[in-house]
Amino acid sequence: MRQAGRYLPEYRAIRAKVSFLELCRTPELAAEVTVQPIDRLGVDAAILFSDILVVFDAMDVAVEFKPGPMLPSPLRCRADVEALRWGDPVGELAYVMDAIRACKRALADRVPLIGFCGAPFTTCSYLIEGGGSRDFLEVKKLLFTEPDLFRSLMANMSELLAKYLIGQIDAGVDAVQIFDSWAGALGPRDYVDHVLPHTRALVERVQAYTPKDRPPVPVILFARGNANLLAHTASIPADVLGIDWSIGLDQGIEVVGRDRVVQGNLDPGLLLGPRALIRSRVADTLQAGAGAKAHIFNLGHGISRFTDPAHAKAMVDAVHEGL
Amino acid sequence: MRQAGRYLPEYRAIRAKVSFLELCRTPELAAEVTVQPIDRLGVDAAILFSDILVVFDAMDVAVEFKPGPMLPSPLRCRADVEALRWGDPVGELAYVMDAIRACKRALADRVPLIGFCGAPFTTCSYLIEGGGSRDFLEVKKLLFTEPDLFRSLMANMSELLAKYLIGQIDAGVDAVQIFDSWAGALGPRDYVDHVLPHTRALVERVQAYTPKDRPPVPVILFARGNANLLAHTASIPADVLGIDWSIGLDQGIEVVGRDRVVQGNLDPGLLLGPRALIRSRVADTLQAGAGAKAHIFNLGHGISRFTDPAHAKAMVDAVHEGL
Repeated sequence: MRQAGRYLPEYRAIRAKVSFLELCRTPELAAEVTVQPIDRLGVDAAILFSDILVVFDAMDVAVEFKPGPMLPSPLRCRADVEALRWGDPVGELAYVMDAIRACKRALADRVPLIGFCGAPFTTCSYLIEGGGSRDFLEVKKLLFTEPDLFRSLMANMSELLAKYLIGQIDAGVDAVQIFDSWAGALGPRDYVDHVLPHTRALVERVQAYTPKDRPPVPVILFARGNANLLAHTASIPADVLGIDWSIGLDQGIEVVGRDRVVQGNLDPGLLLGPRALIRSRVADTLQAGAGAKAHIFNLGHGISRFTDPAHAKAMVDAVHEGL
Repeated sequence: MRQAGRYLPEYRAIRAKVSFLELCRTPELAAEVTVQPIDRLGVDAAILFSDILVVFDAMDVAVEFKPGPMLPSPLRCRADVEALRWGDPVGELAYVMDAIRACKRALADRVPLIGFCGAPFTTCSYLIEGGGSRDFLEVKKLLFTEPDLFRSLMANMSELLAKYLIGQIDAGVDAVQIFDSWAGALGPRDYVDHVLPHTRALVERVQAYTPKDRPPVPVILFARGNANLLAHTASIPADVLGIDWSIGLDQGIEVVGRDRVVQGNLDPGLLLGPRALIRSRVADTLQAGAGAKAHIFNLGHGISRFTDPAHAKAMVDAVHEGL
């Protein structure tokens, strides 16, 4: 999840001057906010400041943030899907690649840098719904009425996203994370039939890529919103599986297997509680994580803008003390 | 879930004349729309047309529908909680009791009538958030910072809701359903610690009530949004457990136990797909349901306003043919 954000006064100071999209598109500023949580919180890895939807710049699909994402022209029929342009995400998102290089310079090997993209389903869902959704009815309508069209859309998206992540690796990221934020929009059967093959293809394409002068980078896969899908998601050989807060970490580890590396999963809502509770829940999370092959401590969803940075710091400190 | 609604032209015809709240508060009209899906679809039970939030009329808490529920004065601190009035939901919601009697007259024993309320957590969440929510951060803030206050709020709500359901039973409903629409806002540990005891108290109070001239009525419990909680929800001895669409019905039955009666769980999004797919998924659902002690076919969440009534009818017909 994004580490920088409105809960940090130093982030708000920059956002007072530029819009969210300008920030994503200005490499020096993106690098500056990427590094802010490293300085403030002492976390052990940096996550590139960007957005999963900037990839639409390689497709000439307009997106606005007001403040949630809004697409003026969502896909609603076969002609809309067939008219899509599948461009070169590396060339057309040069500002992302420049931001990665600027981040690497600013971090100067203090901590690794994680790049990311949305999973094919989440990215396509935004294209179809035109924004966030509670019920994903437009997605389901297209999926259930035109399954072949949906499949070709997802396959194209998977390929585009693989190129995008490989570009990020060439630019220098040390790991990549794939966010399937809306995976929980579907029940297990439809997830397995219509989503999983495309996520798997993306993960495997990226894992098969060996950058110059170093081994392949680890791929973290995080499918959120329905932990019942976890057993299916775990069938993909991602190097790390993210687990959201809706399932106990111990139970999640049993589901994915104790031979997997997991990431998660403190409820970000806990950061609104008292520090003693945060410390105690961090300790419980670390203890549960010890049951996996390896455990990367993380929040089980995005950090809230209402979080006191001192509480986020208390969480990071508790993790370091507990290791 | 509500059976009547904007997907039915005969419902829209009535709503063109009265607001949603007026409709809930006018017994003859509430009865009329309650019966509409019986006539149109041929379903085997009627669900009282009402809303879980009308119970706030017994607390002098204002709620508006525009069109989602909005509370102008949500609870944000101890003083707000302590100032709540816990009135008599039977006397102060006489219009609900009158609507039930009007429904029973209109149904004339064609099908049974199901009354309902929100579960304590869902009802309290609306009080605290002031409406729907994506992250339930106000609820979590109160819960994590003032757990004792939260507990007393939930306990009072559980008692009020028990009185409300018992009033509905006295007015003539044949079964009651408790909707915990927002249960999935919490991870399993917080659900077990802070929610489950109050839901259990509500279910057990209602089950302990024997109306005049007939045995106790069945209690259906439906906790939605995180099927990982299902094993915990199933520890409550509700007569029927609702299962949402996010888990396979066969898997859900394994979790709750094959000795339980279950209700569910077709994804309402499927009703936007072609009729052949609807029929095939209904057949699969009935087959899975055969693994339980008994199975009440139902959607696994509310019906969408964009549903073609002919598709809803195709679903009901497929259920009847498959039995």
